[in-house]
Amino acid sequence: MIDSRAAFHALHHGGRPLLLPNAWDHASAAALAARGHPAVGTTSLGVAATAGLPDGTAATAGETLALARRLARLPVLLSVDVEAGFSDDPAEVAGYVAELAGLGVVGINLEDGRADGTLADPEHLADKVAAVKTAVPDLFVNARVDTWWLGVDDPLPQTLARARAYRAAGADGIFVPGVVDLATLRGLTERIDAPVNALYQPGGPGLDEFSRVGIARVSTGSLLFRAALAAALTAADGVRVDGLEAPAGLPSYAEVQRLAPTQPDGLLP
Amino acid sequence: MIDSRAAFHALHHGGRPLLLPNAWDHASAAALAARGHPAVGTTSLGVAATAGLPDGTAATAGETLALARRLARLPVLLSVDVEAGFSDDPAEVAGYVAELAGLGVVGINLEDGRADGTLADPEHLADKVAAVKTAVPDLFVNARVDTWWLGVDDPLPQTLARARAYRAAGADGIFVPGVVDLATLRGLTERIDAPVNALYQPGGPGLDEFSRVGIARVSTGSLLFRAALAAALTAADGVRVDGLEAPAGLPSYAEVQRLAPTQPDGLLP
Repeated sequence: MIDSRAAFHALHHGGRPLLLPNAWDHASAAALAARGHPAVGTTSLGVAATAGLPDGTAATAGETLALARRLARLPVLLSVDVEAGFSDDPAEVAGYVAELAGLGVVGINLEDGRADGTLADPEHLADKVAAVKTAVPDLFVNARVDTWWLGVDDPLPQTLARARAYRAAGADGIFVPGVVDLATLRGLTERIDAPVNALYQPGGPGLDEFSRVGIARVSTGSLLFRAALAAALTAADGVRVDGLEAPAGLPSYAEVQRLAPTQPDGLLP
Repeated sequence: MIDSRAAFHALHHGGRPLLLPNAWDHASAAALAARGHPAVGTTSLGVAATAGLPDGTAATAGETLALARRLARLPVLLSVDVEAGFSDDPAEVAGYVAELAGLGVVGINLEDGRADGTLADPEHLADKVAAVKTAVPDLFVNARVDTWWLGVDDPLPQTLARARAYRAAGADGIFVPGVVDLATLRGLTERIDAPVNALYQPGGPGLDEFSRVGIARVSTGSLLFRAALAAALTAADGVRVDGLEAPAGLPSYAEVQRLAPTQPDGLLP
């Protein structure tokens, strides 16, 4: 387990950004692992929507833990999005994350945005980061700064101050979703003394561009989940309206079955 | 609840086939309902793969019940795939289905294929159908005949005999997956005195063709789930390789959040 945590840290210092695709269930994680991704994250929106719960409201602590328990069996490094830690109490957050780490989880995302659309006090998230790092020192804690995401005015100074506070508390990486301007990203990576994580957005910078401005990790957030949902609806519409050709890359029944860790004796639909 | 069961029965006698798309989690079911489908089914493959379990092996009784509990809150008629009833004991199957019905589920699929790739004795599935219909008389029981699906020799006589046995036991509909030949489908609908359900397959007959040969219901089986998984992988590949344009119909973060029954105070990623 120590080795897998070290391996995950190392992926942030490989010269090229780590592409961390975000899964929401066993099938998506297993398929991404089988596709060759060395690490997968989770998307809190996907986990919440799958369960019929709202995202960002500390409603999915149980679902997130259950998912981590399932995904921990996969041969892939696993980082888990725990929103703001599912609690206001740093000790509770640390206890929850320690349970994840005990399953084999090698990293977490911890965010300072709140359900009401405002930012938490930076000291509050810093306290959570410090508690987690005390409990599980070698876990990769990616602290998410929601200044851009929530559209605060003049986000740069606040972002840098928050990044400093989270780094001082022990955060291993800083995630600033919502920034796609390359000059701004470069300014962040030059002034934050830790791996900086960017959120991929369709039409925005690609891995090469992120690499050139010093981004260490690129997440897909909820994109893959939303693409999956769109494809299901498109397929259903196709059947309803005018018939449907097989979508590109459609896995067979047997290929989906093989994603499950336990093999059945036979293959039924 | 009685009215919703009657409404589901009526959808099998509307002149045009009922297109029953199959969901696997809350998001897919909620999105299909929002798209205007009056009824949704579940796909046992999708439910199993989501949980990292094998399909068709009675491994997902708990997951299926938990999913039904979540989906029962949606404003859509819900039919649940229960494989072979998750038990060899007809009384246990009836008890399980009665629990589903108590949640508001209006129909089930019950299959005679077994995990080892052989067919169960028709009397065995008939006993399960009879037990379920005794427990919940107005629930729509769709009995699945796996002759074609499992590739038995000379499937037609066996299929008709099984359909007769399941009808005599009280089945409301007969599902014969794996048949795409229109003449064969017409032979089935002319000789089975109940609504016949066909499985949609890309490149096979469309709704109009199914309609012309008397098919009453068309299911998508695991197709939408597999299309969703393919789209997620395609999107991840796009990000990794050369950037990605937004997939067609990509829902926004806020649109996904709105699928959850409880609204959060704010919207966070």
